[in-house]
Amino acid sequence: MRDVAIIGVGLNKKWGELWNVSLRDLFVEAALNAVDDAGVDHLDSMYVGCMTSGLFVGQEHLGSLMADYLGANPIPATRVESACASGGAAFRQGFIEVASGISDYVLVGGVEKMTDVGGDEATYALSAAADMEYEAYHGVTFPGLYALMARVHMERFGTTCKQLAQVAVKNHKHGALNPEAQYPFEVTVEDVLGSVMVADPLHILDCSPITDGAAAVVLCPLDTARRIAKKPVVRVLASAQASGTIALHSRKDLASIESTSQAATKAYRAAGIGPRDIQVAEVHDCFTIAEIMVLEALGFVETGKGGQAAESGMTALGGRIPVNTSGGLKAKGHPVGATGVAQVIEITRQLRGDAGPRQVKDARIGLTQNMGGTGGSSVVHILGAA
Amino acid sequence: MRDVAIIGVGLNKKWGELWNVSLRDLFVEAALNAVDDAGVDHLDSMYVGCMTSGLFVGQEHLGSLMADYLGANPIPATRVESACASGGAAFRQGFIEVASGISDYVLVGGVEKMTDVGGDEATYALSAAADMEYEAYHGVTFPGLYALMARVHMERFGTTCKQLAQVAVKNHKHGALNPEAQYPFEVTVEDVLGSVMVADPLHILDCSPITDGAAAVVLCPLDTARRIAKKPVVRVLASAQASGTIALHSRKDLASIESTSQAATKAYRAAGIGPRDIQVAEVHDCFTIAEIMVLEALGFVETGKGGQAAESGMTALGGRIPVNTSGGLKAKGHPVGATGVAQVIEITRQLRGDAGPRQVKDARIGLTQNMGGTGGSSVVHILGAA
Repeated sequence: MRDVAIIGVGLNKKWGELWNVSLRDLFVEAALNAVDDAGVDHLDSMYVGCMTSGLFVGQEHLGSLMADYLGANPIPATRVESACASGGAAFRQGFIEVASGISDYVLVGGVEKMTDVGGDEATYALSAAADMEYEAYHGVTFPGLYALMARVHMERFGTTCKQLAQVAVKNHKHGALNPEAQYPFEVTVEDVLGSVMVADPLHILDCSPITDGAAAVVLCPLDTARRIAKKPVVRVLASAQASGTIALHSRKDLASIESTSQAATKAYRAAGIGPRDIQVAEVHDCFTIAEIMVLEALGFVETGKGGQAAESGMTALGGRIPVNTSGGLKAKGHPVGATGVAQVIEITRQLRGDAGPRQVKDARIGLTQNMGGTGGSSVVHILGAA
Repeated sequence: MRDVAIIGVGLNKKWGELWNVSLRDLFVEAALNAVDDAGVDHLDSMYVGCMTSGLFVGQEHLGSLMADYLGANPIPATRVESACASGGAAFRQGFIEVASGISDYVLVGGVEKMTDVGGDEATYALSAAADMEYEAYHGVTFPGLYALMARVHMERFGTTCKQLAQVAVKNHKHGALNPEAQYPFEVTVEDVLGSVMVADPLHILDCSPITDGAAAVVLCPLDTARRIAKKPVVRVLASAQASGTIALHSRKDLASIESTSQAATKAYRAAGIGPRDIQVAEVHDCFTIAEIMVLEALGFVETGKGGQAAESGMTALGGRIPVNTSGGLKAKGHPVGATGVAQVIEITRQLRGDAGPRQVKDARIGLTQNMGGTGGSSVVHILGAA
């Protein structure tokens, strides 16, 4: 197996409610930015991470569509789906293809166009990430599922609504430094606790938004990257994926995310490091409680201590391990298929020393954690300055 | 890169209109049959090829769902989509993962549950394989698109409606020997030409049906297969994928399928053989005209001569190169995400000498061709007796 590097990254200009930009245009904008950043003149293969363009805009066959509009055909172009972890799963397929020796230059993009439908339709589309027959069909939505998880965490560990709110406050503070973010402004604990209740204990400001957006990266063999790259090379130290039960009722424990623990364990082993070596991380804060549980699953804090991380400042810029410097899903936005790829972009920028006002000083090793549903799938990547 | 072998194959018992079997049960039945056939006691990773479970049954996140119901989590489980080529594209990802050395035992399954919705909804769901904004939105359906291609082929090369019908006659004759097929009965040229017109010149018996079905295979390194396999080992000699324009109006030529030619050229080169070395093939006869154009794209006949292949008996059992011995999409059925995997199963059975009354004598090398939409994507695999 060959070592793999990231040599180009790109997003569409700004994430948000983009009624004037189509699914294909979003993707192509991000892809061209990544190709331009990489400085390559051709691609050998490409992947498109997307959760449910079928339900959002009636379009499948995204590999063909995006290769066509990118002017990249006849290269192989494959769509990968793992709900909200589609981007992370697509990145892993690109990594495997380069590592295998089959292709040298592989583009991995992620995209979701979510605002062309109304709120009820978007809620229905997103519920396709849960177990449709046993969960969604009976009326439970994702805020409801994460609220159940939050309640158990609060009962068992004493986690408070204020601690949940502090995750949102931290991520919005980071997001305010990110001009590409959908909501680049700060919020206070009072704002969060005073915002409308969606599913007790989750207020609207505990939830990530509905977003149109795309993200793309270019991968190549590490040896090639060292020869051709015009920017600091970032190496993929580990790529790991794991599955959990799709339905929450099948879990052994509602207060932990087993698939993330499984993927993290494999990733740390592959990279030959531990959680204490991670200097910056982007994690899947689809809801504030998710970030708290994920910090525990990744081993950044002890089980039950996740609620104290944002409160103590440990995960803020300047803290021991800054988490979601991009603003996270909460402030940057969450176009579900794009999120996993955008996480890789933020860590790449950090390791390049290219994160501007959000820069984590001397960052050499970073991690991304992307998950689908309530943790039915998780993908963990560890990246290092090469 | 490691050589890759197929050591297990399985389908659900019979394809058809299966109102009493759910999406997950279809997949699990096929997957357990494949695991049983392989005789392995664990899997390292799995792929699920599926086109649009979102539009058919409101369910995405199929990797997580299927790993869960198969009892396979926490292994990585990833859904791959390339419209009607989803199964072939999933097989290619499984091949790459084993070839890379990342995983040893990889399950690749394909599934589609198409009959839980009405005809209009199924037509809408399938049209998501076309360019939704520029084709489907304006009312054109897949029979209409293939009818346009057929008209051009007829005008340019003199292909006749009778020749189209003879493809259906041949494939139903093969399908009548396949108890797993949805429509295991013979039809005559008169039956086809007398059947209801769907989109001139395509009658209903020129079209593949709507089908519920699943298929699965188990891959492993060739070295391992030679050590553990209880059945004849089949080797993957080549795996190639290519993209074409998603919309028909963007094609240079409506009478040829460029993505299939591109994928076939790469596959022949990788295997070090040519079209004359292929002894049996499963190709994507979603419509009778598709098989005719694909035979040309694969180099089995000269351009424009595809219409004569079924007429002359060349592609029938006993002919120079039997095509669609399983009955093809036409008679076996076309659960779109499963089709590409089922093609691999038929060729594996042929190379094992295990195809019963459909056996092609002394078959040592076979080919599968699976495509999405009107050829927006194509995947070609060449398999050999090991």
